[in-house]
Amino acid sequence: MNYCSNCGSSELTNQMPEGDNRLRQVCGNCGEIHYRNPKIIAGCLPIWDGKVLLCRRAINPRAGFWNVPAGFLEIGETVEAGAMREVWEEALAKVLNLRLQTVFTFTNYWHVYIQFVGELKDGEFGIGEESTESRLFSEAEIPWDDIAFESSRFAISRYFEDRKLGDFKVHIGSL
Amino acid sequence: MNYCSNCGSSELTNQMPEGDNRLRQVCGNCGEIHYRNPKIIAGCLPIWDGKVLLCRRAINPRAGFWNVPAGFLEIGETVEAGAMREVWEEALAKVLNLRLQTVFTFTNYWHVYIQFVGELKDGEFGIGEESTESRLFSEAEIPWDDIAFESSRFAISRYFEDRKLGDFKVHIGSL
Repeated sequence: MNYCSNCGSSELTNQMPEGDNRLRQVCGNCGEIHYRNPKIIAGCLPIWDGKVLLCRRAINPRAGFWNVPAGFLEIGETVEAGAMREVWEEALAKVLNLRLQTVFTFTNYWHVYIQFVGELKDGEFGIGEESTESRLFSEAEIPWDDIAFESSRFAISRYFEDRKLGDFKVHIGSL
Repeated sequence: MNYCSNCGSSELTNQMPEGDNRLRQVCGNCGEIHYRNPKIIAGCLPIWDGKVLLCRRAINPRAGFWNVPAGFLEIGETVEAGAMREVWEEALAKVLNLRLQTVFTFTNYWHVYIQFVGELKDGEFGIGEESTESRLFSEAEIPWDDIAFESSRFAISRYFEDRKLGDFKVHIGSL
């Protein structure tokens, strides 16, 4: 932020507001306190016939790497709705019976991933605009060295581990 | 937003950027797209001797009403760390062995609550700056008509229901 979004002033300084315990960007002209907050990325790992559906990213960051369908939660939608929308946008697929699987915080990137696991409806999928490829992978086929983000590696590996144990849990992770 | 936070221009219009499917606030001067995203509120319901610890809010919104300790997740902290910090700030209490309990989206307020349940360490608590009172409540004592937010009502009621069933789950809710 270079200018106050409330009054347009460039008199922004880092200050600790009264009653607060952190530095915030505060406008010297109008007094507005500009809070910055982590963003939510909602996603879902679609499952079909024991395999997981991943998409190859068409866009940066990490273009060319494989990822669990996921993206920024939009205003006005629930996390489940956001996850389902992202699966549609990235893989032209629908998912059913979503269950929460992972909450993963990237503390350096201010992103919190909230990811579900769901059944891929009718086993059908395509290639959305932000993907160059979509594919179902068995555990042995997972391209571990070409996974886009640690949040995806976390979700995929926990899914297969839980399946072996026959006990599907919610996993909390961070980096 | 009245002025572009990037260049200070007041030429902000709602447009659908290329490749997007939603209206965004876009700067007519520098082209910056201003995305707005839901915020995360991290919280934890502390448990001691079968009772739950709630705080009476000193501040608006909903001053005077009882609430599960919770607040905006800060940049650079994990959701668990944020929940623990909020319990400390609101109830001067520490919590142990946190487990994720609820993810609750307020679609109209752009807030997603990520709430845990944890053991109140040594049964000790106080009254933080944003509270006027803290108290342990048994199920029969819960002031249902004076609970601040639906996210708290959801977390408290699911906790007692799960305890009766002896099966603690993660619950997804929305309003």
